[in-house]
Amino acid sequence: MAEKRNDSSMAHGKAGLPPGAPLFIGGRKTEEIRLSYMRYNANLYEEKESSTPEECANLCESSDVVWINVEGIHNSGTVEKIGELFNLHPLTIEDILNVMQRPKFEDFDSYLFIVLKMLGISDMTKGMETEKVSVILGENFVITFQEKPGDVFDTVRECIRERRGRVRELGADYLAYALIDAVVDSYFLILETIGDQIEQVEDQVILNQESDTISKIHRFKRAVLFMRRTVWPLREEIALLEKSGSDLIKEPTVLFFRNLYDHTIQVIDTVETYRDIISGMHDTYLSSVNNRMNEVMKILTILATIFIPLTFITGIYGMNFRYMPELCWKWGYFIALGFMLVIAIAMLVNFRKKKWI
Amino acid sequence: MAEKRNDSSMAHGKAGLPPGAPLFIGGRKTEEIRLSYMRYNANLYEEKESSTPEECANLCESSDVVWINVEGIHNSGTVEKIGELFNLHPLTIEDILNVMQRPKFEDFDSYLFIVLKMLGISDMTKGMETEKVSVILGENFVITFQEKPGDVFDTVRECIRERRGRVRELGADYLAYALIDAVVDSYFLILETIGDQIEQVEDQVILNQESDTISKIHRFKRAVLFMRRTVWPLREEIALLEKSGSDLIKEPTVLFFRNLYDHTIQVIDTVETYRDIISGMHDTYLSSVNNRMNEVMKILTILATIFIPLTFITGIYGMNFRYMPELCWKWGYFIALGFMLVIAIAMLVNFRKKKWI
Amino acid sequence: MAEKRNDSSMAHGKAGLPPGAPLFIGGRKTEEIRLSYMRYNANLYEEKESSTPEECANLCESSDVVWINVEGIHNSGTVEKIGELFNLHPLTIEDILNVMQRPKFEDFDSYLFIVLKMLGISDMTKGMETEKVSVILGENFVITFQEKPGDVFDTVRECIRERRGRVRELGADYLAYALIDAVVDSYFLILETIGDQIEQVEDQVILNQESDTISKIHRFKRAVLFMRRTVWPLREEIALLEKSGSDLIKEPTVLFFRNLYDHTIQVIDTVETYRDIISGMHDTYLSSVNNRMNEVMKILTILATIFIPLTFITGIYGMNFRYMPELCWKWGYFIALGFMLVIAIAMLVNFRKKKWI
Amino acid sequence: MAEKRNDSSMAHGKAGLPPGAPLFIGGRKTEEIRLSYMRYNANLYEEKESSTPEECANLCESSDVVWINVEGIHNSGTVEKIGELFNLHPLTIEDILNVMQRPKFEDFDSYLFIVLKMLGISDMTKGMETEKVSVILGENFVITFQEKPGDVFDTVRECIRERRGRVRELGADYLAYALIDAVVDSYFLILETIGDQIEQVEDQVILNQESDTISKIHRFKRAVLFMRRTVWPLREEIALLEKSGSDLIKEPTVLFFRNLYDHTIQVIDTVETYRDIISGMHDTYLSSVNNRMNEVMKILTILATIFIPLTFITGIYGMNFRYMPELCWKWGYFIALGFMLVIAIAMLVNFRKKKWI
Amino acid sequence: MAEKRNDSSMAHGKAGLPPGAPLFIGGRKTEEIRLSYMRYNANLYEEKESSTPEECANLCESSDVVWINVEGIHNSGTVEKIGELFNLHPLTIEDILNVMQRPKFEDFDSYLFIVLKMLGISDMTKGMETEKVSVILGENFVITFQEKPGDVFDTVRECIRERRGRVRELGADYLAYALIDAVVDSYFLILETIGDQIEQVEDQVILNQESDTISKIHRFKRAVLFMRRTVWPLREEIALLEKSGSDLIKEPTVLFFRNLYDHTIQVIDTVETYRDIISGMHDTYLSSVNNRMNEVMKILTILATIFIPLTFITGIYGMNFRYMPELCWKWGYFIALGFMLVIAIAMLVNFRKKKWI
Repeated sequence: MAEKRNDSSMAHGKAGLPPGAPLFIGGRKTEEIRLSYMRYNANLYEEKESSTPEECANLCESSDVVWINVEGIHNSGTVEKIGELFNLHPLTIEDILNVMQRPKFEDFDSYLFIVLKMLGISDMTKGMETEKVSVILGENFVITFQEKPGDVFDTVRECIRERRGRVRELGADYLAYALIDAVVDSYFLILETIGDQIEQVEDQVILNQESDTISKIHRFKRAVLFMRRTVWPLREEIALLEKSGSDLIKEPTVLFFRNLYDHTIQVIDTVETYRDIISGMHDTYLSSVNNRMNEVMKILTILATIFIPLTFITGIYGMNFRYMPELCWKWGYFIALGFMLVIAIAMLVNFRKKKWI
Repeated sequence: MAEKRNDSSMAHGKAGLPPGAPLFIGGRKTEEIRLSYMRYNANLYEEKESSTPEECANLCESSDVVWINVEGIHNSGTVEKIGELFNLHPLTIEDILNVMQRPKFEDFDSYLFIVLKMLGISDMTKGMETEKVSVILGENFVITFQEKPGDVFDTVRECIRERRGRVRELGADYLAYALIDAVVDSYFLILETIGDQIEQVEDQVILNQESDTISKIHRFKRAVLFMRRTVWPLREEIALLEKSGSDLIKEPTVLFFRNLYDHTIQVIDTVETYRDIISGMHDTYLSSVNNRMNEVMKILTILATIFIPLTFITGIYGMNFRYMPELCWKWGYFIALGFMLVIAIAMLVNFRKKKWI
Repeated sequence: MAEKRNDSSMAHGKAGLPPGAPLFIGGRKTEEIRLSYMRYNANLYEEKESSTPEECANLCESSDVVWINVEGIHNSGTVEKIGELFNLHPLTIEDILNVMQRPKFEDFDSYLFIVLKMLGISDMTKGMETEKVSVILGENFVITFQEKPGDVFDTVRECIRERRGRVRELGADYLAYALIDAVVDSYFLILETIGDQIEQVEDQVILNQESDTISKIHRFKRAVLFMRRTVWPLREEIALLEKSGSDLIKEPTVLFFRNLYDHTIQVIDTVETYRDIISGMHDTYLSSVNNRMNEVMKILTILATIFIPLTFITGIYGMNFRYMPELCWKWGYFIALGFMLVIAIAMLVNFRKKKWI
Repeated sequence: MAEKRNDSSMAHGKAGLPPGAPLFIGGRKTEEIRLSYMRYNANLYEEKESSTPEECANLCESSDVVWINVEGIHNSGTVEKIGELFNLHPLTIEDILNVMQRPKFEDFDSYLFIVLKMLGISDMTKGMETEKVSVILGENFVITFQEKPGDVFDTVRECIRERRGRVRELGADYLAYALIDAVVDSYFLILETIGDQIEQVEDQVILNQESDTISKIHRFKRAVLFMRRTVWPLREEIALLEKSGSDLIKEPTVLFFRNLYDHTIQVIDTVETYRDIISGMHDTYLSSVNNRMNEVMKILTILATIFIPLTFITGIYGMNFRYMPELCWKWGYFIALGFMLVIAIAMLVNFRKKKWI
Repeated sequence: MAEKRNDSSMAHGKAGLPPGAPLFIGGRKTEEIRLSYMRYNANLYEEKESSTPEECANLCESSDVVWINVEGIHNSGTVEKIGELFNLHPLTIEDILNVMQRPKFEDFDSYLFIVLKMLGISDMTKGMETEKVSVILGENFVITFQEKPGDVFDTVRECIRERRGRVRELGADYLAYALIDAVVDSYFLILETIGDQIEQVEDQVILNQESDTISKIHRFKRAVLFMRRTVWPLREEIALLEKSGSDLIKEPTVLFFRNLYDHTIQVIDTVETYRDIISGMHDTYLSSVNNRMNEVMKILTILATIFIPLTFITGIYGMNFRYMPELCWKWGYFIALGFMLVIAIAMLVNFRKKKWI
């Protein structure tokens, strides 16, 4: 499955390199790197689809808020260029290029560095996809680095373009909040998908066992494990962000980050609940498999217990001994049949008493 | 089940909206929004069934305690109106409208914001219902927002009307305490219902296994999981409330909140105990299913073990070989019967020695 | 079982009452309330079996140590009277009357309030009994409230009467210590009973499985769960008590409370060990049930595997085809018998190789 | 098993005594109490096998280091005598006499009081033995109280006698360190024994299941549970000791205590690892029992499934109906045999396809 | 298995020695001890394959950075010599010689002492190998002690030789960072190996059960347990190192250590995820074994249930009673056959209804 291989493949790309050397770590992608920016203040708004690092750096000299979005981080030259222009620490560059980087928050005085994970769930059978987003929050700019085109930020873009919500009135810190909030909101959609699928499987578990229930439960476990691993560090990260007391986050925005923290708690809460539900489902599934086995065994036992002695009796009278007095009795056959019937009924009464039938 | 869908459906209503935009999140309900208030001091008492936000705001200018109860939060216009009149923060409005909001406590200097969950258990088969209650505690007023009509506050209303207890003597902080206490007390009723049902199922588990025991246990697990998720944040919330040191909570009321904290601990304690009991029940159930399977297998094995060799013997003498000396012996038949009897008795003695019968 | 019902029945008695209203919560008991006191200093000693609240309050004006024992808390009038005379807080009265109250410690400056649980184990089948004891420690008096007659304090009474130990030399704080110590010591007796019973069952688990082993293990689990729930809050309580730094506890007694804390740790330790042992016993039990099932299945399979092919051969020569050449062979019967023997021996050798027999 | 009974038998000896009364708690032993001492400084060394409390107390007036070893604590008179001479607190005396005392550390300004447990593992079937050692560290003396003769201190004695290591150069605090270190080192020996036995059983678990594997695993669990209970409090104890900042422990010795703390961590680490290994072994054992059962069932099912239909066919042609055309066919018998062979082969092919054979 | 024996064998070598006496603890190795050094500054670079302690000590008097690498710690004389020359504490020497030493960090003012574990995974069947590396970081030197030749430091050596990365510009503290980073990076390679193997087994678990799946899972559990034990103390160690505030670690290097801490967290994260995955795999495996057993039982039961009654009927008409009217009926045989067919079809319909076939 896709998510696991990533955990350790970091070593491949990095072995043999000096520690801290900037290099794109992860599968190579062929698309071009693409820089776009949005620049706005309460009144004006400007947007450009493809730009250069230098142009972006110049923009930030005005007092407007500038959001620079970098899609594709495989070209380490461009990223290093940006790092140089915006005075980013070499370790920040390394973390931006390392697609395996866990969610984390670091405060480098002149900027805040935030790593997030966008989640995508195409299909339960294929596992989850994860895409790293690095966010740099400076005095009046935000830089986001994505692995590939396509993201969850369209809502934010619309709000800027159409001047909805508070984003145009507040500064770069609120923009950073809005971007992180968009990522966290997208988790709720994933959770909803998982929740719906769990609900479907839950009925299967008790009622009619499909043969693939167990592998479905296994997949759920994997998916929830994966979610956990993504959201737990996020919680810690946002708590640190909220409490950092950095000058880059102004007073009115702090409350929004506190609210965001509440949302991550809610995500974690739901993930943990799903985890418990899935674990309970597994137990219930096991029990009901056991129960069915018990049922099967009972039927076999009832039938065998009734017929084995009867068949033995027919065996006796099927023997070819020359002298078997019963065989010559006129009513021998019917007496034997009657005797077998009595045995069968006695057995049935016995099973009824044991509540088996 | 009703409780799960809620966890993630939040994303639906909210996707595509600017962060923090006030909007009622949750299933739309058609009833009218309804404002009622109670206004009292030690001597006087006034009550009105339906009122307007403006009238309520005016009431609060006197020094009397005013309790404003809002039923139905689907009309975000009214809630926003109240928010404006009482100077509530936009994030508070958002939290009031979001029915998925976890229990939480926030101190906004001029008011305290408390979110609670009322629980309803109509029937074990249908799962639990939850209703969010938001409580705003100001200098001399309390505002409660409920999702729909019907609540657990009638006791408090009676105490105000009939001047029972301390509620008329003490201020708005004691009123807030009394309301939260009513919610926590209602949890005890839920726990009692669950406790009774657990007790009924517990006997089934060991004695006569009904076929639906496992799904009952599964339902209990879900119910307790649901309770846990509701009461754990409550504990944290009330601890924060007690320790907030807010000026809005006067000295004599602090002790009552400490007492309330004790009650939530007791709820959690009981929930955790139920959880352990249910988990133990499940283990015991599994063991007793296993045990019964063992019993069934033993009966089958005893019977088969006795009759299979005997039937084999009858088979031998049922063969049609021309030359089989035993068949011609005068006592052949009886010798064969006797031999079979000896084998059967030997088997039985053997089983007795193994303590199977 | 008795212990569970209690958890939630609190709600019954209390629903519909103003918060904090003093009322005896728990099953009504018909016995009279009974006040007795002991009054002593290093030299003198006085004891009275039945007294009145007023008389007791007067006693406390001297500098002697006074121990007032109240048996039966169903008469809330008397308890409230005492509360008034000794200046107890209304919430203390409420907690004294609430028999569901968890063990807790509160420091009300002028007195310390301690809630304890006495445990009684009449018979494993009947579960455990619990009785709440509330202890009020004042400047020179101790008041104990018990639910019903009969307690574990006789040792302390003897020490006072016969001037054994330190109790007559030290003050009310040492008396309180001695009383709590008596309760904790009684836990060791309970643990010993449980320990003995566990030891008995442990042998059953592996050797000869009685049919009720699983329900015994279930009962142990319940009992230990119950103990845990009682002793964990006690630990916290005594730690708070020791660290409270209250003036009511003098320097020399603090060391004794620290020692008491050690004892509760030891109780918890033992309870946790029992819990692990019982949980291990359950696992072992399951394994040995599984093992036995395996044995049963093996015997069945060995027998069936040997005789099913043999019976099939007898079936062949029992067929009535007109032309079956073997039937006419002179040694046909013995060849058939020999062939069957060969098959049987081959099977047995095979099983021996698989180490089944 | 020996270790469990001890947990609770404390109550027996103590019930009915004033709290804190010194009394030997534990099984009575008949041997004499025996006092020996070693007295040394960097140059001189003196040893005496049997001494009196008074003589020992006199020794301590010099500036030499004195190690007093008391074997047998059943004679509470002698212990009390020592307590008096060395100014020990009555609670220390009580703790010395109570053989059930958990490992603990207490700082009584003028001396440090340390309780340790020596472990002995005679044979896995008999469980573990534990012996309490109380260590009193004063200004220039160490007193050790053991339950019975025989200990793990011979290494230390040799070092003193032969002037090996640092013990003769450093003071009483280093002696105390060396004694505790000897106890902790002895744990490693126990762990090695357990580790070897685990290794032996581990192979059994997967390969050839001995019938007693489950009871061996059960015994391991018990042993590790017992170790855990002994070493966890030790860790806490030594951490407290190291951080106590007592004047009795000089600067150079503190580093050694820190090292000792590392060793206890290593013991705990190993115990926890064994615990996980044993728990994993149990799971693996269960799985492999299940697997074998599956194998057994498959063999039975294959055989039964092949022969049951065949036997049915022989049954048909064994019927005695007057008019059964097949019986008269010339090749009837061989056709029947051929038909049976076809069925058997079809079954076998089917099983092969299911990968059962 | 290799890793376990080590846990406890420490006691062997050490029993009977004074505490803290330096001695090589671990299996004796016959190779020579080998000292090599690298000495460099930003401009110059010097390397020597085999050297003496004295020569190395002299080197350190210049201001260049010196890295002394000691391979083979069995010769305690050489190690003690180095300890003397570099003023190492006796306990540091003891820890360097003890191959069982857990990862730890100690700050001895004049130098920092760091113990690491290099992991090697030759083959899953042989378990993991561990090699201790002790790192001494002084003012301008780093000393590494390895158990045997062969390490993971070649990357660092190359960087020094070829002047790649920052290592030549920065001081001894950065060298220490680079060495520890090399060890942590090697963990990722191990994790990748384990991850690949888990992925292979994961498919086996659900689809076609190889008979050795359970022992593979068992080995994974052991390997992950082993990893956990190695990396958890590492995390703590690096956290201490980062926060030590030692003067030996300069400002610019602190950030790199913080980054290193992030890497260890990522290792732990992956290990914990693998642990959960393996535990989930085990559950799924158990379930699917259960499921297959159920399938097997169903097939047996279906077959037996259909044929047992039929065989009974053939048995009846195989009896040799003289007077059995059905036998003489013209169509008796075909009626009997038809009757059996009806029974068989009824059974099949019944099983179809139960969804067994």
